[in-house]
Amino acid sequence: MAPAKSLAQQLGEKQREISVAEFFERNRQILGFDNPARALLTSVKEAIDNSLDACEEAGLLPELSVEVHKDGADRYRVIVEDNGPGIVRKQIPNVFARLLYGSRFHANRQSRGQQGIGISAAVLYAALTTARPAKITSKVEEEEAAHVVELFIDTQKNLPRIVREDVVLWDRPHGIRVELALKAKYQRGRQSPYEYLKDTAIVNPHARIVLTEPDGTRVTWERAATEMPPVPKEVLPHPYGLELGELSSRLKASSRPTVSDVLLHEFAGVTPRALKEILAAARIAPKTAPGSIHGEELEQLLSALHAAPLLPPSAEALSPIGPLLIKRGLRNVLGEVRPEFFAPPVSRPPKIRGGFPFLVEVGLVYGGGLPLDQPVQLLRFANRVPLLFQQGACAITTAVGGMDWRRYGLDQKGGAGIPTGPCVILVHLASTKIPFTSEAKEAIAEDEEIDREVTLALQAAARHLRIHLSRRTRRELAGEKFDVILKILPRLAAKTSALVGKPVPDLTPVITRIMDVVYVDPQPVATEEKKPATSRFTIDVTNYTPRPRVLELFLEMPPAEFPPSRVLPAPDGVEAPLGRAWWTLPRLEPSGRTRIELDFPSATEVDLDDLDLYVAGVDESHLLGADPLPGDWEVRLPRAIVEAAEAAAAAETADEAEVDYDGTETSSPLDEE
Amino acid sequence: MAPAKSLAQQLGEKQREISVAEFFERNRQILGFDNPARALLTSVKEAIDNSLDACEEAGLLPELSVEVHKDGADRYRVIVEDNGPGIVRKQIPNVFARLLYGSRFHANRQSRGQQGIGISAAVLYAALTTARPAKITSKVEEEEAAHVVELFIDTQKNLPRIVREDVVLWDRPHGIRVELALKAKYQRGRQSPYEYLKDTAIVNPHARIVLTEPDGTRVTWERAATEMPPVPKEVLPHPYGLELGELSSRLKASSRPTVSDVLLHEFAGVTPRALKEILAAARIAPKTAPGSIHGEELEQLLSALHAAPLLPPSAEALSPIGPLLIKRGLRNVLGEVRPEFFAPPVSRPPKIRGGFPFLVEVGLVYGGGLPLDQPVQLLRFANRVPLLFQQGACAITTAVGGMDWRRYGLDQKGGAGIPTGPCVILVHLASTKIPFTSEAKEAIAEDEEIDREVTLALQAAARHLRIHLSRRTRRELAGEKFDVILKILPRLAAKTSALVGKPVPDLTPVITRIMDVVYVDPQPVATEEKKPATSRFTIDVTNYTPRPRVLELFLEMPPAEFPPSRVLPAPDGVEAPLGRAWWTLPRLEPSGRTRIELDFPSATEVDLDDLDLYVAGVDESHLLGADPLPGDWEVRLPRAIVEAAEAAAAAETADEAEVDYDGTETSSPLDEE
Repeated sequence: MAPAKSLAQQLGEKQREISVAEFFERNRQILGFDNPARALLTSVKEAIDNSLDACEEAGLLPELSVEVHKDGADRYRVIVEDNGPGIVRKQIPNVFARLLYGSRFHANRQSRGQQGIGISAAVLYAALTTARPAKITSKVEEEEAAHVVELFIDTQKNLPRIVREDVVLWDRPHGIRVELALKAKYQRGRQSPYEYLKDTAIVNPHARIVLTEPDGTRVTWERAATEMPPVPKEVLPHPYGLELGELSSRLKASSRPTVSDVLLHEFAGVTPRALKEILAAARIAPKTAPGSIHGEELEQLLSALHAAPLLPPSAEALSPIGPLLIKRGLRNVLGEVRPEFFAPPVSRPPKIRGGFPFLVEVGLVYGGGLPLDQPVQLLRFANRVPLLFQQGACAITTAVGGMDWRRYGLDQKGGAGIPTGPCVILVHLASTKIPFTSEAKEAIAEDEEIDREVTLALQAAARHLRIHLSRRTRRELAGEKFDVILKILPRLAAKTSALVGKPVPDLTPVITRIMDVVYVDPQPVATEEKKPATSRFTIDVTNYTPRPRVLELFLEMPPAEFPPSRVLPAPDGVEAPLGRAWWTLPRLEPSGRTRIELDFPSATEVDLDDLDLYVAGVDESHLLGADPLPGDWEVRLPRAIVEAAEAAAAAETADEAEVDYDGTETSSPLDEE
Repeated sequence: MAPAKSLAQQLGEKQREISVAEFFERNRQILGFDNPARALLTSVKEAIDNSLDACEEAGLLPELSVEVHKDGADRYRVIVEDNGPGIVRKQIPNVFARLLYGSRFHANRQSRGQQGIGISAAVLYAALTTARPAKITSKVEEEEAAHVVELFIDTQKNLPRIVREDVVLWDRPHGIRVELALKAKYQRGRQSPYEYLKDTAIVNPHARIVLTEPDGTRVTWERAATEMPPVPKEVLPHPYGLELGELSSRLKASSRPTVSDVLLHEFAGVTPRALKEILAAARIAPKTAPGSIHGEELEQLLSALHAAPLLPPSAEALSPIGPLLIKRGLRNVLGEVRPEFFAPPVSRPPKIRGGFPFLVEVGLVYGGGLPLDQPVQLLRFANRVPLLFQQGACAITTAVGGMDWRRYGLDQKGGAGIPTGPCVILVHLASTKIPFTSEAKEAIAEDEEIDREVTLALQAAARHLRIHLSRRTRRELAGEKFDVILKILPRLAAKTSALVGKPVPDLTPVITRIMDVVYVDPQPVATEEKKPATSRFTIDVTNYTPRPRVLELFLEMPPAEFPPSRVLPAPDGVEAPLGRAWWTLPRLEPSGRTRIELDFPSATEVDLDDLDLYVAGVDESHLLGADPLPGDWEVRLPRAIVEAAEAAAAAETADEAEVDYDGTETSSPLDEE
């Protein structure tokens, strides 16, 4: 008789391997298949993300079609088709019916898919809920016919199980068609396939996307750009943020003879000069065999690498959205809302975390028809993919909630959390490796470096918002003053004159005396034409002060949109790389006015708020509609101006102890952190 | 020369399998290793969760020790030791150095670990950040010596790699010791190992836990209970919520000869009678071979199963915390805060989602030293494990934020989101399968059924809060009134009398006339003894109305704590299963008072707020300190009382058209949804 088994033995016998497919079948919520509505969206998303990646890798302008058909009370058929390069027959089963199988996991460059999980997860979910196989059609250019494969995932083995196979003619030269039957719920609105495709079209304007909804409605997002975005290049890992274990395995895995070779050729940013410093600091001989480094030596090498003055990370592996598309994208999302203010989009330089480059972009709009008393709308993107779920768990949300937005003019309870106000904030994180909180890739994990970069980008955008709001307030005040003075005063005078039987006196000196400001009034010029060749702006400067003024006007705008196609009069100075121009205005008598005209090609997306205006020659308390020149402008003022200004200042100081032009002006809304 | 490869071919060649260990090494944030501080906590958590599970399976009272030693600027050594059954030598490498390997994944019962990922992930992270192996010591009862194994994970293969092995003597009869060196940061406070262990001790009072901190500080959470919690039993899957694909695989996988056998013996809740109905509805012959069912037939079978009147899910697989421990736990967390109100903990009956049973428990405390202007503190637990991260992504948070707490007396901006107020809410989800949002198991995915159950439990607790708050308000008002009348009026009378030179009149009739209420005043009786054998409460009822009263007093409390050990006078009626008792009070003349005394064994945890008091015989506007009898109490009033009350009512109606006792009273704070 065998001896009775001990408890530890009994427990030991229950131990067994869990197939990754089994694991995810049971934990499908981790992959974004929580419920029928989300499952439909996730299936579409995984297929589209793959198609966009494949088209871009192949240099093809994406042509994508999504069809959703109703097949029963809670069952739908989803068909996603692309014009990508196709997948060779041999790889079809692995790509579509095997979790953790893919081509992008080991490539250090920005792509939408990385895990090799997504589309197989959709196939898994479809089989789980409808017991039907996925039907894949693939045609590659060099073959005459297309392959059709119907398959399941064998969940216990995480391997494909093909149930039917065929070769058919397909009128496409190349492409993929994925057809899935799944338990689902179709809806428009928030967190829907419609919203996902709309947001995808915004940041992927080189793609044409057609959605056919279950009721037959067809929505087309036409291509807004016919140029491919620059294809991200694969780069070497950067030593900043590298962990000890990683360094150890990379050294051991390398076939190069010396540690110097490995550091120079298998890592980014290590120059020959930096290499010398690193090896000296770590006290390692340059010809040491890489595999022999361990223990204390390994730790010293890592410290030396982290401390060394390496080259900054390259942006080559990244594909940012860019300011123009961010702006166009926001305009697109907002449609009829017509915000009053578009902050110039912010794009931070690439940084490194854990050896992977990343960068952050931010867009911000304010006002117009946006709701006043709702939380700010947050649009999150990661590697050009909209993130529609798990906002509360995302590092982007944390960064937004961690700023005191009251400083920038938004309401925010307690100075923390999502602010309230008529505002939309877009944040894009681009990286060769996004730290998602789960395989569903809907939220970015908390990370100090990401948080810092997102915060800096948000602050830059928020500063523009604050300037806009304070300018708006001052303009409103000025407007009220004008109303009172220019409209009511003459009427008052007329009535009083009639009463006392005297003629109405000339009020101009009185009005000027009361106003006592230089008024700068930039305005877009409306046109009758539907598609005007240019968009025109005028800037009127009126001297409502009781003395003549010698003024300088300074214009600053996003360098990307600078210079205007036509400027009248021509500026006296231009600094194109900074998007700056300035004019010495003709001497303005009291009540005198002068005008500057700017034309932009209408393809550019210039807004009134892009034009930051500064005036020198009058002090802040006598200036409306523009700001005094900030201290960080280093302009070479023509000598004549300086002299005239100084003379005017001297005269005025004598007159009423007021300095209208202070050349040493330092406080400004722009020079704060 | 070989022909040039097409793009699809080139792309195909890049396709390859990704090892699950490689995947998680690169995506360690998914497993809860986002940063050094969290990595330390997660490592401790994975080891402790395993130890608790193993001890409970073996029926051993857990003795757990956690030591954290500082080994360098950002390096710590973590040692977790238990008195569990140990792991047989053969399984040590797989359990600790292979992801997706475990014993609990396929068992349908509540346990902390299920994935077979956690502790191997800690080993993976340790190696990644320090290049050091994990050191495992294990002793099983039947062997003399313990095994020590030092190991890594071979990430490319997801298999263990043993670097050193030994056999040693260990003074424990059985147990496990895990030692890891990892990049970490030790801190106390929020989201720390300390907080995790403290919260774990609360809901696992049968465990003794000792934490040794890096500075040598030793914290011990002593065992608060010496009984093991009931061990959850493995149960069969329940057909409610089953998906088509699952049903199909279960039928195919079964070795039983007929579909009837499979349904009766491999699913929970299917009675022979329900089976008949199911097969009839699906038009399937009882002797059909299970593997032959597919297509239309399969779908009909699933619909029939979902529609059938099956037995409700068994609670045997679950291990709820229970009202007593919830209360004790909250008291423990709150320490010096001393809340003024503990809502009776709510425990919902088990429900089914996706075939898995689950249940929800809720505790709520209010007031005392809790901060007034902060968001409510939310304590989340899943299968007796505290959830410290990702609050914003959790279904529990969504359910709390989805309720309008303003109705229950808390501040809440816009009636949605986490409410503000001096309140702590504990929510526990127990299930054989918790749908976590990621492998880090820190947040529960959104789910309609879970949301409904959590909301119902919260509402039940919140209703108690509302009753408490309205009662408090009324008591405060009554208190103010008493102050004015009983203190100031006599002084006023004395002064006035002195002024007019007359004797002070007897004020009692005046006071009674002004008060015009029946005042019910329950009080705990303080005692000098440190450990009193009983805790005593008194309930004083005073008739401050100008006429005699015939009253009935009704007491309701959590049935778990009912009945009291001694009641004086004995109640006239008792409904023990509902925790109810009532008394016909002796006729009270104006200013008359009577008292009821209740004693409870001091081991029970009765609070003043557990005693809900209702009074019949006086209408609401003349009642203070208790509520009118709710409409849902079906009490058999003694005939004498009814007659007396009716006579009194008739007399009063004649007197001043006021009905003091309305037997048809229906509105009440308890009968709302």
